[in-house]
Amino acid sequence: MSSMRGDSLRLDDAMAILGRTPASLTALLKDLPERWVQATEGAGTWSPYDVIGHLIHGERTDWIPRARHIMAGDLRPFEPFDRTAQFTDSQGKNLGELLVTFAELRQGNLATLLEMNLTNQDLSRRGMHPELGQVTLGQLLATWVVHDLDHVGQIARTMAKVYSESTGPWSAYLSILRDRQR
Amino acid sequence: MSSMRGDSLRLDDAMAILGRTPASLTALLKDLPERWVQATEGAGTWSPYDVIGHLIHGERTDWIPRARHIMAGDLRPFEPFDRTAQFTDSQGKNLGELLVTFAELRQGNLATLLEMNLTNQDLSRRGMHPELGQVTLGQLLATWVVHDLDHVGQIARTMAKVYSESTGPWSAYLSILRDRQR
Repeated sequence: MSSMRGDSLRLDDAMAILGRTPASLTALLKDLPERWVQATEGAGTWSPYDVIGHLIHGERTDWIPRARHIMAGDLRPFEPFDRTAQFTDSQGKNLGELLVTFAELRQGNLATLLEMNLTNQDLSRRGMHPELGQVTLGQLLATWVVHDLDHVGQIARTMAKVYSESTGPWSAYLSILRDRQR
Repeated sequence: MSSMRGDSLRLDDAMAILGRTPASLTALLKDLPERWVQATEGAGTWSPYDVIGHLIHGERTDWIPRARHIMAGDLRPFEPFDRTAQFTDSQGKNLGELLVTFAELRQGNLATLLEMNLTNQDLSRRGMHPELGQVTLGQLLATWVVHDLDHVGQIARTMAKVYSESTGPWSAYLSILRDRQR
C-alpha cells in the first residue's frame, strides 16, 4: 500500500487511524460511570453513548456504501446520512454492547476497504454528495478519518464539562471548557 | 469510596477517568505513522508526541506533589509547573517509551492517591496556587481529570487538521477543523 498517495491522503495512514479508534474509545469509555457516559453539553447535544451509536450508523450506512457507490461509477447523489438514527437504533443496548458492535463493524469495513484494492487513481474518482455536490473517493476516506477524530474530541470535551465548576480557578487554564460554549 | 462527595467531585468518578487515559492514548497513538505523531497545529503548538511528554511531567511534578502539599497543610504557594519541560525531558525517547512511562507513572500515582485515604472533608482543604491563589484539593483532582481530557481533545484536533484540505467540501461538516483556528 505504500505506493498509494493522492490529495495528500495515503490510504495506509488513513487506515492506521480508522483501525485504532474503536480500541481507543473502548479503553476510554468501557464500564465508565453513567455520569460520564450520559453527559451532554446541553439540550440538543450528544452524550458519549449517543456518539458511539452515531459511529455505528456511519459504519453501516455511510463510508463503505458511499465508497462502493463511487467505485460503481454511479453519478446519482449518495443516500443522505441520517444524523439521528442512533436515538432509535441504540435503544435497549448498553454502551458495552455498542462498543463491541462498533469495533466489529469497523474491522469488517477495513477488511472490505483492503479488498477493494484501491489505486491512487481510484482516490480521484468522483461521486455526488446530496448537499455538497461533487466529491472524490479520497475526500470521502479523509472525511471518515476526521469524522472519527471529531467525535473523539467531542467525547473528551463533553466529559470535561462535567467538571467545569469543580475545577474552580483552574478553569482559566483549561481551554477545552470554553470550546463550543453555549 | 462511594461515600466521597465534595464540590460535585466524587473521587471514584475522577479515578475512573484518570485510570483510563493511558490505555486510551496508547490505543490511539502506539505505532502510528510519524505523520500523525509529529503533527502540530502550527508554530508554538504541540504534537501528540509533545503532549505525552507533558502528561509525564505532570505525573512527576504536579498532581500528587500538590495533593501532598495541601494535605501537609503547607500554605506556601505550590512549586510552579514547567509547561515546556517535555522539550528537554523527551529527547531521545520514542513515543512507545513515553506511553509506557506515562502509564506506569499514572498507575503509581493512582495507588498513592488511594493510600492517602482522602475523606470528603479533605477535598475541601486549601492550598495556594502561585498564580491562581486559593484552591482546594477537590479542585486539584477535578483539574487533573479535565487536564487529561483537554489533552485527549487536543491530540484528536491536531491529528484531524492533518487532513483539513484532504476532506474537500466535507470540511464544512467537520467542526473540529475550525476549533482553535489560527
